Amino acid sequence: MRAITLLTDYGLADTYVGQLKGAILRIAHEASIVDITHQVPAQDVKAGAFLLWSAVEVFPAGTVHVAVVDPGVGSGRRAIALRAKRGDLFVGPDSGLLVPAAERLGGIEAAVELTRELYWGLFRSTTFHGRDVFGPVAAHLALGAPLEDIGTPIADVDRSASLPGHRTTAVGITGEIVHADAFGNLVTSIPAQALPERFAVRVCGRRIGGGPKPTFASVAPGELLAVIGSSGLLEVSAREASAQQLLGAKRGDPLEVERE
Amino acid sequence: MRAITLLTDYGLADTYVGQLKGAILRIAHEASIVDITHQVPAQDVKAGAFLLWSAVEVFPAGTVHVAVVDPGVGSGRRAIALRAKRGDLFVGPDSGLLVPAAERLGGIEAAVELTRELYWGLFRSTTFHGRDVFGPVAAHLALGAPLEDIGTPIADVDRSASLPGHRTTAVGITGEIVHADAFGNLVTSIPAQALPERFAVRVCGRRIGGGPKPTFASVAPGELLAVIGSSGLLEVSAREASAQQLLGAKRGDPLEVERE
Amino acid sequence: MRAITLLTDYGLADTYVGQLKGAILRIAHEASIVDITHQVPAQDVKAGAFLLWSAVEVFPAGTVHVAVVDPGVGSGRRAIALRAKRGDLFVGPDSGLLVPAAERLGGIEAAVELTRELYWGLFRSTTFHGRDVFGPVAAHLALGAPLEDIGTPIADVDRSASLPGHRTTAVGITGEIVHADAFGNLVTSIPAQALPERFAVRVCGRRIGGGPKPTFASVAPGELLAVIGSSGLLEVSAREASAQQLLGAKRGDPLEVERE
Repeated sequence: MRAITLLTDYGLADTYVGQLKGAILRIAHEASIVDITHQVPAQDVKAGAFLLWSAVEVFPAGTVHVAVVDPGVGSGRRAIALRAKRGDLFVGPDSGLLVPAAERLGGIEAAVELTRELYWGLFRSTTFHGRDVFGPVAAHLALGAPLEDIGTPIADVDRSASLPGHRTTAVGITGEIVHADAFGNLVTSIPAQALPERFAVRVCGRRIGGGPKPTFASVAPGELLAVIGSSGLLEVSAREASAQQLLGAKRGDPLEVERE
Repeated sequence: MRAITLLTDYGLADTYVGQLKGAILRIAHEASIVDITHQVPAQDVKAGAFLLWSAVEVFPAGTVHVAVVDPGVGSGRRAIALRAKRGDLFVGPDSGLLVPAAERLGGIEAAVELTRELYWGLFRSTTFHGRDVFGPVAAHLALGAPLEDIGTPIADVDRSASLPGHRTTAVGITGEIVHADAFGNLVTSIPAQALPERFAVRVCGRRIGGGPKPTFASVAPGELLAVIGSSGLLEVSAREASAQQLLGAKRGDPLEVERE
Repeated sequence: MRAITLLTDYGLADTYVGQLKGAILRIAHEASIVDITHQVPAQDVKAGAFLLWSAVEVFPAGTVHVAVVDPGVGSGRRAIALRAKRGDLFVGPDSGLLVPAAERLGGIEAAVELTRELYWGLFRSTTFHGRDVFGPVAAHLALGAPLEDIGTPIADVDRSASLPGHRTTAVGITGEIVHADAFGNLVTSIPAQALPERFAVRVCGRRIGGGPKPTFASVAPGELLAVIGSSGLLEVSAREASAQQLLGAKRGDPLEVERE
């Protein structure tokens, strides 16, 4: 059976994640369910899209990924499922949330709107499609239901949550901060392949030279450094400290890379 | 094998949830264990009883539910297990915690006090019955041990944590706020079936008309609305905002519904 | 298959725990993965060593424990795996983190440095060995790979994170606070076996007599008490209150036990 991953903004204090899992287990008793995170900032589709993008590649090809960050629940927004070229399946709202992750796995091979209620759960609510629609559909997909059976083919999907890019200028490369993790590492929109061999980063009024460092231990404790992060993106970090706090940085802040 | 759910006030920073799961796996190596939540406010039996009630119905019939919010651990309070009419099993302290959830699944069909140490774990402590008693008993129940084997039948259980009710008055219906979720949605004690077709809610000095709204998208961002929540209870919410913060509301606050 | 436990300082807001699990599932599709905790204080190896020590004994013998609190990631610190006499396997950095837990399970029977890249994952980063090295190695061990196959035998391991001890003095026993849990219970370094039958505790300028109490219910709500905790260590607690807050105590604070 395919594994199922979950990414939501439900948090862990309520029972919503538990109910979503119950809805899956009711259909797929032996399902292997893995939490990616449930602490996406509430209703922040772009943050969710980045986090999903960052996580999917390491899972086995063919995994079913459920993602729910859904300010439009109960409105006209469509519920969809996608198949990426690698074979992974994505289930969630048509808000752009799923698209960057699917692009990472080779691009969207097929997309359907979830219209066949036969594959939904026991309950119907206007506020909790994770439990009532997305979880049950994912369970059926994990058990082997073909994507084409669970909905109606659609040609277009919402692509409004695509990841920020980077741009080459006369001086170097410009990009932006896309995520600050819990350690205070600042993940940027600049992929490793775009970087020169030796470079400096300008961000929040500071210049951080000598990049990329091979490891945190290349600088003294408390010092800033530029590294290639585990997602393959440039990151600005500090050894045994928070680069986010040292720089006062936040998502969306611009940065520049210049050859050294 | 029956799935096992866990609901506690242990939090996730310590190793207590991990130890509880270890105690289960030691007996039932293949157990499917699902967290409902471990963030019940510390030692708040009524909050735990509501959260358990809210979550159990969507799980497969026959699931084993372990719940531990246990200010009386080590005192004279009994350790019990219940079977609900739907077939689900409940394991935990006899503090009322388990009863509303069992009522939701058809009522209590059988109840035992956990007296047979044969079904307990390797360790004995006076402070951690989740690991030492409830988890091991749940593992045996998941493997198929009959309820009648694990303890001594009892005729009465503590029912002091029953959910707040609602009352019909000359003006309409009165109830109270039973839970504020992490999004700031205010769950009330008034079930959907009790509501008139069109109504207004009075709560915290505000009147919220036009209920029930079919969806959050029925109002402008930041506005309050009354909806039928995913538990089948009236909820007061705000679109893309926290009703709890907008109203300064808290659990126990009264509210009134009047026909519109 | 052996179960796999995880203990890290990754937190749950990012996708690192999810990625670690994905790396395991890619190799061991049916792995049973249990979270011990992911909220070890960031890069606090000693706190992690205590938490791992506190949790491992209740798991089935032969479990694979992955622990990652790793300020030295990417530097010269070795990646290692250990086998304890009980048969459990430990995977993580050679920072002392794994040693107290292995000692609890009978001591270290064999140790290897992780040198065989054949057993590592698809990705290579200098900052995320949990996903790239430790998780994949644990998956292979869970599937039955012999410890001797995954690395090179080593004779010595870092033992710098050993748990604080206790000392017998003319007056009684001295020790220290090793952990404050989320309820505010203060776990000490003094094992139950070292305690006299009746004793008082002096800590943070207070004297708490009448120890050990059999249960929290032995004192009035809000009062301090000394109990034998669930790890087999002396704990200072308060009934339905936080001993940590009442005493203003913190990790490392000294305490004395005197016969009563």
